[in-house]
Amino acid sequence: MTAPLRDLGGGRVWSLMVSLFGDLAQEDGKTIDGPMLSAIMSLLQIKPEAVRVALHRLRNDGWISSRKAGRISRHGLTDKGRAESAAASPRIYAEPRAEAGKWQLLLLKAEESDLDEKLSAAGYTAIMPRVVVGPADAEPPAGALALQGTTAPDWLRQELRPAALDDAYADLHDTLVRLSAALPDRGALSPLEIAVLRCLVVHNWRRLILRHPMLPAPLVSAEGAGHRCHLRVADLLNRFPRPELHEIDALLAA
Amino acid sequence: MTAPLRDLGGGRVWSLMVSLFGDLAQEDGKTIDGPMLSAIMSLLQIKPEAVRVALHRLRNDGWISSRKAGRISRHGLTDKGRAESAAASPRIYAEPRAEAGKWQLLLLKAEESDLDEKLSAAGYTAIMPRVVVGPADAEPPAGALALQGTTAPDWLRQELRPAALDDAYADLHDTLVRLSAALPDRGALSPLEIAVLRCLVVHNWRRLILRHPMLPAPLVSAEGAGHRCHLRVADLLNRFPRPELHEIDALLAA
Repeated sequence: MTAPLRDLGGGRVWSLMVSLFGDLAQEDGKTIDGPMLSAIMSLLQIKPEAVRVALHRLRNDGWISSRKAGRISRHGLTDKGRAESAAASPRIYAEPRAEAGKWQLLLLKAEESDLDEKLSAAGYTAIMPRVVVGPADAEPPAGALALQGTTAPDWLRQELRPAALDDAYADLHDTLVRLSAALPDRGALSPLEIAVLRCLVVHNWRRLILRHPMLPAPLVSAEGAGHRCHLRVADLLNRFPRPELHEIDALLAA
Repeated sequence: MTAPLRDLGGGRVWSLMVSLFGDLAQEDGKTIDGPMLSAIMSLLQIKPEAVRVALHRLRNDGWISSRKAGRISRHGLTDKGRAESAAASPRIYAEPRAEAGKWQLLLLKAEESDLDEKLSAAGYTAIMPRVVVGPADAEPPAGALALQGTTAPDWLRQELRPAALDDAYADLHDTLVRLSAALPDRGALSPLEIAVLRCLVVHNWRRLILRHPMLPAPLVSAEGAGHRCHLRVADLLNRFPRPELHEIDALLAA
């Protein structure tokens, strides 16, 4: 049933594991034990050898640490992995909002015309040289002219949308619509299956939204592929809440 | 005493007469009779032949109409001349204000990136393609994003000021400062002399300010040459209020 999600071209195994740990075991102290990881990866149709290679890479990158408890390996996010997961979470799990709320436009001084990393990190997006938009509560850089907006014309939303991702968002949207219709009630899925489903949804979503800056809600087009996709993601994640690790454990021990 | 003002290079005689009629006889029905015009032009050191040529030109342009009343010619603004004078008056006689108040920034749709005549006429000034600023109460064009501002950084004021006129504004400012110091009390000048003084002040001022769009007060630098000049102009025009035509007439009949 989740094959179309797997088939969207979800990149590398290590990246899928980043999505998995971020969704299922982001909290400090939480670990995914070897048997649970194997069960999940098996449902995701990832071969054991590929899991081992990915784990190796993530450990080398300082993202995941593994320790033995008896015969079992416990895999968990490192501080670094957890911090980076936490940084992305507000975007991944944001409530979908469009076309209402406050935002902010900055006019930058001529010599400071670039949208630099600091501004990007603060949530600003460039419209053109010297003109950037961002959340109403983002601190403007010293000296910039900051103007508050409450509405925006539709052409601005169209102009700001990541048009290069229109097709990818539309594909994910359509896949999620079909998946959503085919999925049974929450009670008919095991905690393990829900973990796998969420991992796939989060992974495919994350790979698109993290490729462009987050726009303040009034600058998001309600009709745009990105927002329509967001509604589907949020609906599925709400409909199938994150299972507790001990629920999955209990299932595997049974 | 007004020689330095005359020497600033005030352009053509017809242009000086436009300033004179605009200041002294803009109201509907007001005329400057031949003898009064001759007296004023004589004080302005304009030769009678040059006055005749300028009158001829202004009549041909439909700016002034002349009619005979007995042996006297009465010269007055036409409807067109009056309308154009009235259009410029809010700028010429504006109270000097800087660095406080409201203003407005427009972001124009990409295809409508030019500051066109309509926007200019509405009081907007371009900062860069697609970005214009104007008075807070100027109607934004349909579809434009309009954001209200209450303050502005100083670099924006510097950027917007008509830098090409810095020297001309500074020259006029210095001339007006010297003139102002040298001028006697209002009571010591005749209505005719006041009319001539005002004509010269308005004329020199008008020739500079009408060469660039009017900026909203918060975007005007208090230290800029333009604003410092404006303070001097307003001071002189307040100190020497417009005389009534009948006062000048009485003087000439005496």
